[in-house]
Amino acid sequence: MVDRITIDPGLVESFLMELAAFGAYGPTGVWRPVYTPEWQAAQDQYASWSVDSGLHVRRDAVGNVWGTLPSHDGGPSIVTGSHIDSQRPGGRYDGALGAIGALIALRALREQAGTPLRTLEALSMCEEESSRFPGANFWGSRAITGCIHKGEIDTLRDYEGETMGDAMRAVGLDPLRIAAAQRHDVDTFLELHIEQGPVLEHAGLPAGIVTGITGIRHTVVEINGRADHAGAVPMDLRKDPMPAFTAIASGVIGTAIEMGRPAVTTVGRVVVDPNLPAIVPDKVTFTIDARHPDPEGRERLYARHAEIVNRVTQETRLPITSRIVMDQPPCPCDLELVDLIHHVADDLSVPTVRLHSGAGHDSQVMARIAKVAMIFVRSKDGRSHTPHEFTSIEDATIGITLLANALFRLAY
Amino acid sequence: MVDRITIDPGLVESFLMELAAFGAYGPTGVWRPVYTPEWQAAQDQYASWSVDSGLHVRRDAVGNVWGTLPSHDGGPSIVTGSHIDSQRPGGRYDGALGAIGALIALRALREQAGTPLRTLEALSMCEEESSRFPGANFWGSRAITGCIHKGEIDTLRDYEGETMGDAMRAVGLDPLRIAAAQRHDVDTFLELHIEQGPVLEHAGLPAGIVTGITGIRHTVVEINGRADHAGAVPMDLRKDPMPAFTAIASGVIGTAIEMGRPAVTTVGRVVVDPNLPAIVPDKVTFTIDARHPDPEGRERLYARHAEIVNRVTQETRLPITSRIVMDQPPCPCDLELVDLIHHVADDLSVPTVRLHSGAGHDSQVMARIAKVAMIFVRSKDGRSHTPHEFTSIEDATIGITLLANALFRLAY
Repeated sequence: MVDRITIDPGLVESFLMELAAFGAYGPTGVWRPVYTPEWQAAQDQYASWSVDSGLHVRRDAVGNVWGTLPSHDGGPSIVTGSHIDSQRPGGRYDGALGAIGALIALRALREQAGTPLRTLEALSMCEEESSRFPGANFWGSRAITGCIHKGEIDTLRDYEGETMGDAMRAVGLDPLRIAAAQRHDVDTFLELHIEQGPVLEHAGLPAGIVTGITGIRHTVVEINGRADHAGAVPMDLRKDPMPAFTAIASGVIGTAIEMGRPAVTTVGRVVVDPNLPAIVPDKVTFTIDARHPDPEGRERLYARHAEIVNRVTQETRLPITSRIVMDQPPCPCDLELVDLIHHVADDLSVPTVRLHSGAGHDSQVMARIAKVAMIFVRSKDGRSHTPHEFTSIEDATIGITLLANALFRLAY
Repeated sequence: MVDRITIDPGLVESFLMELAAFGAYGPTGVWRPVYTPEWQAAQDQYASWSVDSGLHVRRDAVGNVWGTLPSHDGGPSIVTGSHIDSQRPGGRYDGALGAIGALIALRALREQAGTPLRTLEALSMCEEESSRFPGANFWGSRAITGCIHKGEIDTLRDYEGETMGDAMRAVGLDPLRIAAAQRHDVDTFLELHIEQGPVLEHAGLPAGIVTGITGIRHTVVEINGRADHAGAVPMDLRKDPMPAFTAIASGVIGTAIEMGRPAVTTVGRVVVDPNLPAIVPDKVTFTIDARHPDPEGRERLYARHAEIVNRVTQETRLPITSRIVMDQPPCPCDLELVDLIHHVADDLSVPTVRLHSGAGHDSQVMARIAKVAMIFVRSKDGRSHTPHEFTSIEDATIGITLLANALFRLAY
């Protein structure tokens, strides 16, 4: 028997480029939201490649495509994959690399190592990006883990107003069958993904091993002041919400800077009302996106943010309301899987680093039913969600090689 | 001959309320942009009241209505008035009070003091608010002072896209005749107006004498950063424009707070791009509205603002551009007129204060051709440009009494 699995860079390149043709947008972009004709063609291609690769193909109730390499004895599966949908527009690699990488890894395993001791499955998930249905998030992995609420097929609407249920019917799926997509027999889920930041590039490394997915809290803060004429009302008689906003925004961003990696805080959305040059604002509403992968660091970050909001409220005596609208806990990866991938990398002499994911991924949803781990590959300038995202074929091949050899250790 | 002019509060109330019916908007609002049917009806009413009051009426080429009380000997005029157009919606008093006050003052002067030694004119100007044509500003007084450029009748467009020229034609005015509105024989212009801030109310005074109209500078600042994923990019690798924005905004507002009255600074408009909760902003663009009525204080305020922008540019090393888009110098009122009004107030035992105007007014345009002065009356909560603006009939009557008696001293 072989002692390691090798991956053909030519196949990686041809699959990546061929898949990118479905929903091609300009020279390097991809526009492939869920349940569109381009999406359907891409999943058909994935199924066809799976058959060519000797896998058993099936599609589930939400349109996830599964390619199975069965073991002799059955039992719980080791699954690998990612999502096939894209931003509008996105690039060639986000999601697609993990779906294609799963397929190429299983193809290589079958060819080079034969039938596994444990069942392997390559998975192209239907949706992760929320790029068509803002409320869909993780539609594919939520279906697999039984986390879709019945009403969502009617309440979720795309930007044109079409419901999720109608969009599913349009591609031949029965939304009343969603529950049938649920799996109870997944033991392990490995996801290969591009890094969506510049950490690997800055460290000069082709790949990294993800130790956990960050916790994310979105807080919407509303500061109510009083609209006044910008000339006729002296400073001492104003109730201007703007200084309170600048104090909170600079305070929360400054906290993450002081704490250093891996804490991050972003004030990305600011709405000023009425937003006119010569009117003191009546109201400033803004978001705080705060992330930390460690439970303890996360609590410290959030507590300092709350302190800042309280202090500014007391100092300005303005009515300030603060509302948590999203609060995802951190998702730690399985430590044994992380160690195993690390050993694989060492054996293959691939230089890597352990890092956390600052973005959300299907793995955090799959963690409800399975042990999970992720492999990241280097992104040029750390960019994603844009036609300009880029990962070299060399780095993509290294990532798939790590994935294939990790699966080899787990399943053979 | 009488030694003082008295004003009938009943007439003040009935004229104010009757005029407010033209373009009435809700219980107390007015929606009367220039060259609309409501505007036309209001100017017709003003002309009709002028005739009733024994004045000679004429309309000029832009639709300003003039009511003249001629002297025996002719010569340069003493003019008083304000604008008849409103915000969308505005209230009953901004502009209207000064137009009506002029009419009532001249009516009382004619009735109580007869023919003046110097010609008096009551003026209802067509437009000041820029509420229909954003670029129109001071259309009425600009016509009188010869400050309208020929091309403006074609280039100025209202919010529905109609040109100024077409809007004029629709109410029977010939836009090619605008130059005929210019006056060369105005010696003095007095304007009664509601205060658009809370200074008189806070001081417990019904009226104030304006020493000058503030200088206004609008600066548009653009901070270019780099859009990044809010989770995947560590703080130390970001080019986030938000901290630079908060530093500049809090700095410029803080400068005006430190300098105290009469310095004011407002950051009223902020545009964040792309303005999404989970994306580090690519760019923040915002306005600085800075005002000071004294030439020296103004330079100090502006210099400190420039220092702050420079310091933040150096500290953050982000590309920050700063563009002055409007720069009106302060307009001092005529000191002899200010003193005269002060003496009139003392004689009438009206408690007043000298204050500056933090808002722009037709008087600053009229200052190109005449000596100017303004009288302010108290506004409830300092509000204007809203249906909620309110000045009591008592205070309005006090303002008109001051105006009439100042005119009495000047023209008899």
